[in-house]
Amino acid sequence: MKLEETLKRLDHTQSESISRLSELLKFKSISTNSKYKSACIDTAKWLVTELNNIGFIASLRETKGNPMVVAHSNKSKGDFLFYGHYDVQPIDPIKEWKHDPFNPKIETIEGEKVIVARGASDDKGQLMTFIEACRAIKYVNNTFPINISILLEGEEETSSPSLVPFLKKNADELKCKYALVCDTGMWDKKTPSITCSLRGMLSEELSIKGPDRDLHSGIYGGAVNNPLKVMSRLLANLHDENGKVNIPNFYKGVEKVSKELKTEWKKLTFSEEKFLNSIGMSIPNGEKDYSLLEKLWGRPTCEINGMWGGYIEEGFKTVIPSKAYAKISFRLVGDQNPEEIRLNFRKKLSNELPEDFEINFSNHKGAKATQFPLNDKIINKAQKALNDEWKSNTVFEGGGGSIPIVQHFKNILEMDTLLVGFAHDDDNIHSPNEKYDLKSFFKGARSWVRIIHEISK
Amino acid sequence: MKLEETLKRLDHTQSESISRLSELLKFKSISTNSKYKSACIDTAKWLVTELNNIGFIASLRETKGNPMVVAHSNKSKGDFLFYGHYDVQPIDPIKEWKHDPFNPKIETIEGEKVIVARGASDDKGQLMTFIEACRAIKYVNNTFPINISILLEGEEETSSPSLVPFLKKNADELKCKYALVCDTGMWDKKTPSITCSLRGMLSEELSIKGPDRDLHSGIYGGAVNNPLKVMSRLLANLHDENGKVNIPNFYKGVEKVSKELKTEWKKLTFSEEKFLNSIGMSIPNGEKDYSLLEKLWGRPTCEINGMWGGYIEEGFKTVIPSKAYAKISFRLVGDQNPEEIRLNFRKKLSNELPEDFEINFSNHKGAKATQFPLNDKIINKAQKALNDEWKSNTVFEGGGGSIPIVQHFKNILEMDTLLVGFAHDDDNIHSPNEKYDLKSFFKGARSWVRIIHEISK
Repeated sequence: MKLEETLKRLDHTQSESISRLSELLKFKSISTNSKYKSACIDTAKWLVTELNNIGFIASLRETKGNPMVVAHSNKSKGDFLFYGHYDVQPIDPIKEWKHDPFNPKIETIEGEKVIVARGASDDKGQLMTFIEACRAIKYVNNTFPINISILLEGEEETSSPSLVPFLKKNADELKCKYALVCDTGMWDKKTPSITCSLRGMLSEELSIKGPDRDLHSGIYGGAVNNPLKVMSRLLANLHDENGKVNIPNFYKGVEKVSKELKTEWKKLTFSEEKFLNSIGMSIPNGEKDYSLLEKLWGRPTCEINGMWGGYIEEGFKTVIPSKAYAKISFRLVGDQNPEEIRLNFRKKLSNELPEDFEINFSNHKGAKATQFPLNDKIINKAQKALNDEWKSNTVFEGGGGSIPIVQHFKNILEMDTLLVGFAHDDDNIHSPNEKYDLKSFFKGARSWVRIIHEISK
Repeated sequence: MKLEETLKRLDHTQSESISRLSELLKFKSISTNSKYKSACIDTAKWLVTELNNIGFIASLRETKGNPMVVAHSNKSKGDFLFYGHYDVQPIDPIKEWKHDPFNPKIETIEGEKVIVARGASDDKGQLMTFIEACRAIKYVNNTFPINISILLEGEEETSSPSLVPFLKKNADELKCKYALVCDTGMWDKKTPSITCSLRGMLSEELSIKGPDRDLHSGIYGGAVNNPLKVMSRLLANLHDENGKVNIPNFYKGVEKVSKELKTEWKKLTFSEEKFLNSIGMSIPNGEKDYSLLEKLWGRPTCEINGMWGGYIEEGFKTVIPSKAYAKISFRLVGDQNPEEIRLNFRKKLSNELPEDFEINFSNHKGAKATQFPLNDKIINKAQKALNDEWKSNTVFEGGGGSIPIVQHFKNILEMDTLLVGFAHDDDNIHSPNEKYDLKSFFKGARSWVRIIHEISK
């Protein structure tokens, strides 16, 4: 494979690359709300066309939800399966966006050119680094040095309901030697990173019901238990005074976080003060006696992601509502079992509920945490490729967010996953004004060319 | 005044009365949301026309908010000022209404004919009992036995921002010997009631801010304080374990609730179990060691009327939001001072807030509680008129909700207020499927004819 020529091809076609990324970012592929379903389908169709144009054999695959995109570089089985997701998070609060989230714009922020749009970083920008790398490789070399398969899904932001059935049904077609995923970040703007652990995830939605209808707080107030008060107390009691999650047996399995990884993390210098200041905060939070990086990568959490009830519009309504609602998620580490935690969480809340209240839970999915060994051959080759591209020592970090696909690849297709990505902490993913640095985009594509070259050796 | 003939006239024109009430109920005069402003103005104009038709000299009076309707039976000053409000509460949750809240329908519930619509009871149906009484008196007698003035406002459900300036500006025109208000309920479906005490009211809206933007709970979770957790804790700490409001000096002035009234309340039999069962509950709530009636009429409360933050739409978003919000109201009794309590409430919450959080309060209005002496001449005449109409002993009750107008009439116009109304506890005011019994409507109008007759003697 002609490495230098391929890299040059990428450098010479940057403006076309940006145009293609912009096209992809214009699709409103929000998967958490069913009204954007047709936008998701259009996104998948666009990706199929692009991949066919490059020289893949690509097709759209129906599921019960949003379709999958599957592509192969050869008719024979792939050696490496690249995974990305084309769906994006919702855009609220829309008022805080500087411009339409689906009308991507190039801006200069602190001297760096960035592209601003929902999905710019998570995950459209990132997955396009791989596709642009493939395009240049094919153009220059007329072939790929390894057999590559690609799987792009459209339900990652909504817990991937169709993914597991799809992997199981198509295991023969999708099973490769190794998976490649581009959905993680760099250590800093100069230092590439390979993520070797990921927290797991469990999410729960609940509603509680007290009075059988909304009541006037003048007529009933003082003699009737208010569901908003009850919900506040349930939520306030999810953590103890030391920041620990207050659910029986919650920490079972946490001790299994690899010592090897913790040693790597200790080598990294990181300022808690700087981290907090970057988001407008100043006081350390969470569990006492743990470093910031361990809290983010090696400790489990419980977060309230949404709560609501009563009158929440403009003005005032003196109501005691019948119901109150909350969305809660957990990040898991080591060997924590999501389904055990789900049961203990539900039991705890049910026990704490007043006897004349009802509680209902909806079943969102859960995934265990993941860890990879640091002496793996593919990880070491990727490390060399990244060192070459970025002229900097690649870091082995942990990931605070979960990428359940990694767990599924292991369990269903018996593949390990290489997690390499070029996002930055300030990319505002899941927030207004999401962006992706053009340097991440261009050097990200170059990095994949180098990685593919290394692992083909 | 021809009493019996006037009552007969009312009985013979019931269907026309219902038609007029239905017309009034069709206006979407929701005052808590500015988008219904023109509907409020239309309602006021309709009332002016109606009152002019009856023989009042009626006019619409501009304010900074929704207009007032003012009418006089004579050119000379009125002896009695009737007050009502034509605005209504919001209609959410709209899904729980059996039909369009602004398309009134007559239904039969448990053998009683009722009219179902937003405002049917609070306060359009109630104020129309007085207007229909006046119509019949004028028709039969060609004159009124007392000089009557009428004031109808359109901002009662949003703390009446224009009312105090209006009363002050027009004090000479509006000051009468006594005020009449029809915004309260009957003791039960057979027993009329005069309300001799009303709880006061204070409402507060607050927002807290932690991180300067919404954050991904995977990347930040465990190291950043979550505003929804902080809000839960603030709200959970508003009451202690005995149901008492947990704000410094909150109970100052509560001891001034009249012993005479408490004695009247003790005479009334009331089943806490039945009360709770009627709203789908079973466990007594609120302060220990107080009877249900004293909790509702003679004790202050703090209620959460709304709270929200984070992702509250369909699906799931793993966000740590930047902000969280709540709407909170207090019911006050005796001599409790709303502005002192507001300050103590704000101080308490500010003290409990993490140091790197911000808190903001919006200033909703407050009103002190009100009590009337039971041996007042007008109260005793109204009592006789109600006894005659309902063939049942009139009860002296307390009111759990506040009617701030009563306080304003006392402070600004030096008038006491007669509080008579025909609503029922099951009228669902402020809730879906609000209704007003046709018996309340027809016999309410007859009651006002008798009251006007008695006080004219």
